Amino acid sequence: MSEAPPRQPSVGDNDDRTDRAAAVSHLVSPRSIAIVGASADLSKINGRPLKHLLDKGYAGRIYPINPKYPQIAGVTCYATVAALPEAPDMAVVALPAREVPDCIEALGDRGVRAAVIFSSGFGEMGAEGLRLQEQLLERAHRHGVVLCGPNCLGLVNGFDAVYATFSQYADGEANSGPIAFVTQSGAFGTAIAALARERGLGLGYFINTGNEADLGFSELMAAVIEDPRIKVGAGYLEGVRDGAALVRLARRCHGLGKPLVLTKVGRKAAGVRAAASHTGALAVEDTVFDDVIRQFGVLRARNEEQMIDMLEALSGERRARGDGVGIATQSGGAGVMMADRAEELGLRVPQLSAATQSRLAGVMPAFGAAGNPVDVTGQFVARPDVMRESVVALMDDPAIDVAIVWLQLMTAHVDLLVRLFTEIRDRTDKPMLVCWVAAPPEAARRLRAAGIPVYPAGERAVEAAAALVRQHQARGLRLASPRIERPAWVDRWDPQDMGVRPSLDATRMLTEAGIPMAELALARSEDEAVACWRSGAGPVALKIESPDITHKTEVGGVLLGVDSEDEVRNGFRTLLRGAQAAAPHARVLGVLVQRMAPGHLELVLGVKRDPGFGMIVMVGLGGILVEVLEDVAFRLAPFGEDEALRMLAQLRMSALLDGVRGQPAIDRVRLAQVVSRLSRWAASVEPVLSELDLNPMRVGADGPVGVDCVMVFRQAHAGPADRPNP
Amino acid sequence: MSEAPPRQPSVGDNDDRTDRAAAVSHLVSPRSIAIVGASADLSKINGRPLKHLLDKGYAGRIYPINPKYPQIAGVTCYATVAALPEAPDMAVVALPAREVPDCIEALGDRGVRAAVIFSSGFGEMGAEGLRLQEQLLERAHRHGVVLCGPNCLGLVNGFDAVYATFSQYADGEANSGPIAFVTQSGAFGTAIAALARERGLGLGYFINTGNEADLGFSELMAAVIEDPRIKVGAGYLEGVRDGAALVRLARRCHGLGKPLVLTKVGRKAAGVRAAASHTGALAVEDTVFDDVIRQFGVLRARNEEQMIDMLEALSGERRARGDGVGIATQSGGAGVMMADRAEELGLRVPQLSAATQSRLAGVMPAFGAAGNPVDVTGQFVARPDVMRESVVALMDDPAIDVAIVWLQLMTAHVDLLVRLFTEIRDRTDKPMLVCWVAAPPEAARRLRAAGIPVYPAGERAVEAAAALVRQHQARGLRLASPRIERPAWVDRWDPQDMGVRPSLDATRMLTEAGIPMAELALARSEDEAVACWRSGAGPVALKIESPDITHKTEVGGVLLGVDSEDEVRNGFRTLLRGAQAAAPHARVLGVLVQRMAPGHLELVLGVKRDPGFGMIVMVGLGGILVEVLEDVAFRLAPFGEDEALRMLAQLRMSALLDGVRGQPAIDRVRLAQVVSRLSRWAASVEPVLSELDLNPMRVGADGPVGVDCVMVFRQAHAGPADRPNP
Repeated sequence: MSEAPPRQPSVGDNDDRTDRAAAVSHLVSPRSIAIVGASADLSKINGRPLKHLLDKGYAGRIYPINPKYPQIAGVTCYATVAALPEAPDMAVVALPAREVPDCIEALGDRGVRAAVIFSSGFGEMGAEGLRLQEQLLERAHRHGVVLCGPNCLGLVNGFDAVYATFSQYADGEANSGPIAFVTQSGAFGTAIAALARERGLGLGYFINTGNEADLGFSELMAAVIEDPRIKVGAGYLEGVRDGAALVRLARRCHGLGKPLVLTKVGRKAAGVRAAASHTGALAVEDTVFDDVIRQFGVLRARNEEQMIDMLEALSGERRARGDGVGIATQSGGAGVMMADRAEELGLRVPQLSAATQSRLAGVMPAFGAAGNPVDVTGQFVARPDVMRESVVALMDDPAIDVAIVWLQLMTAHVDLLVRLFTEIRDRTDKPMLVCWVAAPPEAARRLRAAGIPVYPAGERAVEAAAALVRQHQARGLRLASPRIERPAWVDRWDPQDMGVRPSLDATRMLTEAGIPMAELALARSEDEAVACWRSGAGPVALKIESPDITHKTEVGGVLLGVDSEDEVRNGFRTLLRGAQAAAPHARVLGVLVQRMAPGHLELVLGVKRDPGFGMIVMVGLGGILVEVLEDVAFRLAPFGEDEALRMLAQLRMSALLDGVRGQPAIDRVRLAQVVSRLSRWAASVEPVLSELDLNPMRVGADGPVGVDCVMVFRQAHAGPADRPNP
Repeated sequence: MSEAPPRQPSVGDNDDRTDRAAAVSHLVSPRSIAIVGASADLSKINGRPLKHLLDKGYAGRIYPINPKYPQIAGVTCYATVAALPEAPDMAVVALPAREVPDCIEALGDRGVRAAVIFSSGFGEMGAEGLRLQEQLLERAHRHGVVLCGPNCLGLVNGFDAVYATFSQYADGEANSGPIAFVTQSGAFGTAIAALARERGLGLGYFINTGNEADLGFSELMAAVIEDPRIKVGAGYLEGVRDGAALVRLARRCHGLGKPLVLTKVGRKAAGVRAAASHTGALAVEDTVFDDVIRQFGVLRARNEEQMIDMLEALSGERRARGDGVGIATQSGGAGVMMADRAEELGLRVPQLSAATQSRLAGVMPAFGAAGNPVDVTGQFVARPDVMRESVVALMDDPAIDVAIVWLQLMTAHVDLLVRLFTEIRDRTDKPMLVCWVAAPPEAARRLRAAGIPVYPAGERAVEAAAALVRQHQARGLRLASPRIERPAWVDRWDPQDMGVRPSLDATRMLTEAGIPMAELALARSEDEAVACWRSGAGPVALKIESPDITHKTEVGGVLLGVDSEDEVRNGFRTLLRGAQAAAPHARVLGVLVQRMAPGHLELVLGVKRDPGFGMIVMVGLGGILVEVLEDVAFRLAPFGEDEALRMLAQLRMSALLDGVRGQPAIDRVRLAQVVSRLSRWAASVEPVLSELDLNPMRVGADGPVGVDCVMVFRQAHAGPADRPNP
């Protein structure tokens, strides 16, 4: 996907929005199609759509447009857009880039509301192309045309034989089905679509979004996921420009009960923004993406192969209703390998009930192991009932939610095995995946035709089973955001009042929001500092306070464990001298006196503004762990305690929260409440807050207490319209 | 693999060893084969070997043995083993379990030195079967017959059409080649072999080891890896009984320059032994296996699919000579995905030289990116020279050691592309892997026939490239073990003197071995304790000393930072009272007084005796990290500083060693010296040492210092013959 500037908001009120939705609907399900720049050579890019529409039997009206021909392949050809006998539902534009803006104007004027633009030479071609793309978009908005592309392969609606594409994918056999696939990449997307077809998986829609000058991934997917013939959405992404739209899409898929599976490249490179706070520095974009899509129930596929594996399981009729995996094999080793992988993925491979075990003992040969994994051995060729009855018994066990049956080769027994698996399927109502290593090609084809997913490798079958379990878990998410109320001061906030907030202010705001913060006072003199120390019990920390010093420790501006009048006085002077030396021009307001907080664990909490998604809350394990291990979890604000608990559980060092080496367990619920409150506060002050870093937050038996925070307000006020809250 | 008792040492002197090696050599390359229990029904288990030998054209002499038939399939059949006209090189035994020991005796008496035993009903069938297996083994030893099996599918030597097997694998086309595959699992092994054939990879040997009553995985692989026609060894393991043999095999493969690739199941389950020290508790067997095989240059494949992917790359003629990966694609996104995976695997995706970049600029279309990954775009169909010249330029770059070319579909251009790739291959001398997503089957077949590895998914191609890089790195390992000298006292050691060593003794031994330990003295009275404290500067730790208290902290037996006479006296009394209360029957020797050690980092060092491999040294990051993250590295002792440095680099939290949050970097070399010394000491006292736990070892600017150790001597003295040092 090329880098284009953020899209102009093209929708103002509800009517416009409805118009736009209607236009997108015409785009993906047109009753009539114009092809501007159609070629009489049906093998060329601008000839292929007509060829495909004719070959695949599109039932709508087709209008090739090219002044050179009276007709192409027997279809009447028109000289101009204006000459069309009706306004078709959509147009395919295959003209040189320079001619496209005028063409879109003509289409709009003729009443065409949607266009797919094949032409390259736009945003992907540097500054000049970008200017042309902006011009195109402006013209499209002015003349009321929604655009897919430019620089895209177009789209296929397999149900209605709409082949508005020149993709190689269209060369293959038509095979529409329950999957809607939308891809930002043309070449890779075509490859994925072809892999799906190889597996017998039908794509109801195939859409390549190209430069996304107008319609982006989420808006296009949102249009097609509504189609009742679609059971699952699949997307290939290279970037996310409109996170809010993606979250809306995820919510809608969740509401419809349709899984959304995304593959996104760019796990490592780029994306790491240098920023003023630790929160910023850790914010690898992909990690945020990963956490936020899971927050809204989206499944992520690691790569193209895993995506197809997941789609094969998810496009079946059956869903898992829990996380218990039953495994039956004819090899003990394969069973161990699959059980290991299941454990790594957080699935259960549960013990079977006594009833199941005795049922298995009744049908299994003596030397098969009757545990889970069940080893049915190779004997089932001689006694097919052994395999059938033991797998049915396994699947009937109440602890089992999805079953995997592993076998290999058996070239001579395909008929028998296909019949066996079909019988098992018919006697159960839980999802069953077959892993058939080195399967005769015919076997895999026949099982798939019977609606039974087949995998060529054990771990891949387990990963597909995990997708069914994750989808079950995602279905159980409550995606309603907690209510937030914007504080009155936010609307009155003066944009000039930006930058790092004074510590006292920041601490007060957080305390008011229900975030426990260590008691804090500003001392302007030694005497005031001593009085602050005397006002409570136990040692204090002294910290230099200046609007010009963001990270106090880096200038030696923090003294810990100060607990006598002498220490307080010496400390006060030391800090002032140090600040003077390290930052001669800093405006020093005084020294903060803060009671030392109890607690044996250090966490980091943070808020940052993600350019794609908006306000992101981070929780991590503090100190050295956050720096080296980057053990952090992100969520889009606001969210409730349940989600905050999931953040805590997600940390790799989560076990620390429960106490190791004799340390007490901390109260996860209490901590989760604080994290959720922080998320609600962050969302409520979204127009103002740029970022917040609570580092560390100490947590002990008395719950969490923030002992240092850096709060930064935005440079320029942006109203809520700028970033609609999802 | 079933659980059989450790094998009796069957070799006493060199002559015996040579005899045994000769017998194994006859087993895998026989000039004549007897089939005991041959059936006239060639579809049965005991009929299939004869069928395969005839069908595949075995050139040696075949002797079916069965009193029921004068001949089978035209081959003369003998009534008994004794009646054979010569002593064949090997025998296949396909008799009921009960008859097998007598048969082996008869074979031995007839002069047969090697047998493959198909029969099941031995160790895999519980106690009774195990007894029969022991009887069989005893008989085999007595009559000088080496055994493969029992309960195995047998073996194939594809070069000489030796089909001493009833595996389904033998049903397929013969395709011997440069891979020797030895598998402990019959079913899974057959599946892997079939997958290899699907990819056009030839197995020179296929051997299923079954119950490994006599010959184990390593000994069989060691026999076939010597065959000059074999270029790579591949093994599927379910357990390792003889780690020393595996290490010998790995050394030999390293010496021959032949990669050894192992897949082993059992990554998670079982294997975790409860043990007295932390070192023991953390010793998940699979982790030890993983670290030790890598120490000796073995490559590990995660699963069967990855194994085949790796073999496809490794069985080619070309080797990587560095870790730089060049990637050429027709999709930017695929390039990002592959570059990410390469980075995850620790490979470099280097920038190209200025010369290469200008060469690329000369051949690439304007909108292709000329970096690495190189995006050659889809234009190469129109201009094949673009792809050919840009990939050649990429591969000519000195920073590139292995190249991956990614493409998809292109169904109509198979001829062109096969020619292009062959041309590229012929113009370069570095390994080139093709990733062709949704390739026409014919394309993959033709490229493989031309010796060009082909992968169906981007990340899998990168993982295969990583195997080439790892093999290059493994080739560079120096596997010579450092010399060790056994201290004289070890041979004089009294086996009665077992159990936990007194701290003073243990500390002295370690200090003598060059392991820096904090200064330590035993105080038998308060006054002695005070004197110890006064003898140096700074605070001390007080620790209860008793042979009956292994973990002092667990009984409240440690006081830290004691630094005044009062504190020392109070501490002394407190510890004695505490020990009395916690362990009334413990023999308390006094209180250890130990100067507090400097250093900001805590490490754990340990030694344990692995039942498979022998003396294993562990290094980990201490404190909470070792418990929650299990961030530890294992190596087989003894090893040098280089290997110790690799252990440190392997730790996930390795960055801590270099100083974070303003802490100073520690001296890795100095630490590695200590770890290497510990390994040499451990190896030198192997007959005596059961385990050692140095926890923590503090490391700071002054290098590492051990502050606590638990050293345990063995319960029974086992001489060096029991565990030969590899």
